[in-house]
Amino acid sequence: MNDALSLALFSGTADKLHAAATIAAGAAALGRPVNILLQYWALDAFRVERIETNLGLSYDSMGEGTSVPVAGAAKIPWLETFRMAKELGDMTIQACSGSLETLGLDAGRLDPIVDGPCGIAAFLMAAEGGQILFI
Amino acid sequence: MNDALSLALFSGTADKLHAAATIAAGAAALGRPVNILLQYWALDAFRVERIETNLGLSYDSMGEGTSVPVAGAAKIPWLETFRMAKELGDMTIQACSGSLETLGLDAGRLDPIVDGPCGIAAFLMAAEGGQILFI
Amino acid sequence: MNDALSLALFSGTADKLHAAATIAAGAAALGRPVNILLQYWALDAFRVERIETNLGLSYDSMGEGTSVPVAGAAKIPWLETFRMAKELGDMTIQACSGSLETLGLDAGRLDPIVDGPCGIAAFLMAAEGGQILFI
Repeated sequence: MNDALSLALFSGTADKLHAAATIAAGAAALGRPVNILLQYWALDAFRVERIETNLGLSYDSMGEGTSVPVAGAAKIPWLETFRMAKELGDMTIQACSGSLETLGLDAGRLDPIVDGPCGIAAFLMAAEGGQILFI
Repeated sequence: MNDALSLALFSGTADKLHAAATIAAGAAALGRPVNILLQYWALDAFRVERIETNLGLSYDSMGEGTSVPVAGAAKIPWLETFRMAKELGDMTIQACSGSLETLGLDAGRLDPIVDGPCGIAAFLMAAEGGQILFI
Repeated sequence: MNDALSLALFSGTADKLHAAATIAAGAAALGRPVNILLQYWALDAFRVERIETNLGLSYDSMGEGTSVPVAGAAKIPWLETFRMAKELGDMTIQACSGSLETLGLDAGRLDPIVDGPCGIAAFLMAAEGGQILFI
């Protein structure tokens, strides 16, 4: 058995990143290794120019009568939760090489919380036998 | 091995809740324990005031030429499927404590199908060694 | 242990289908069996009339300052990646029977890359003991 928790993180809105960070922090606090692969809009959210901006909420928040947080998306502490998780335990955050290419991004434009680029095969090999989530 | 199926349920539209309920009911019918943690918009959908309303469809339904169900989202039997799953087998539906706080909700305002609040660590511990999905 | 990777594929936008296809191709390249169940909008995207059209991008792409691919969604090679994955290894793509009914579709209207209809219980039984993702 592999007790690592692997997250293929695709979404880039503050609410979904917060849910992901909460799960990552919970696993790290339990002493489990956490491996995160940033794809598409999650990768884009970790660019230096965007990471401290208001990333908005997912489309689900626009349903009739939803309980949108009073302070809106700007105050959702998704980044702080990822930083805390990284300090708590053994967590890596890597940028999917294919998504870097698709979005035309350079790994050097990402926030230093990102450890570096990673291919999908290496990510899947590290995840094998453990739990993996797509978020 | 843990044969439980755990769902971190984030989304609150009728179509995604229906897909989740179908998977949960399938696992329950196979005799597997099912543990569901409601986060964000899924949690919001289980409020007494919203659970019987039209929760709409996900953004994917708005693509060009999609086959939207004739009766629309209002008739998608997501709640009936969850109720059936709960009767079929061993299924718990819990409210993520962190999401209750973020959305400013009280657990008492949730439909009785929700068993109570639960922290992320307890959810992850129950899920360990089994399958876990983020929906 | 079951080394199969199972994907419950719900989303039907080009970016999310591409992320799914990349993961499927990576697993197939590593020699792992891959089982895909198409639900809702992913199923709808595999209809003969839609599979070669522009399926658009997910709502996340509409956030402020996102790095939308220069060529837009039309050029994202999600279908080519699925076709390649199927040639690379042992991959099945099946249509969820329940979603066929909900959307009013006939399995005969799907692209031949789809192997046939499948119930949720059969999908879960094949996935048991392995990794499963909801995308």
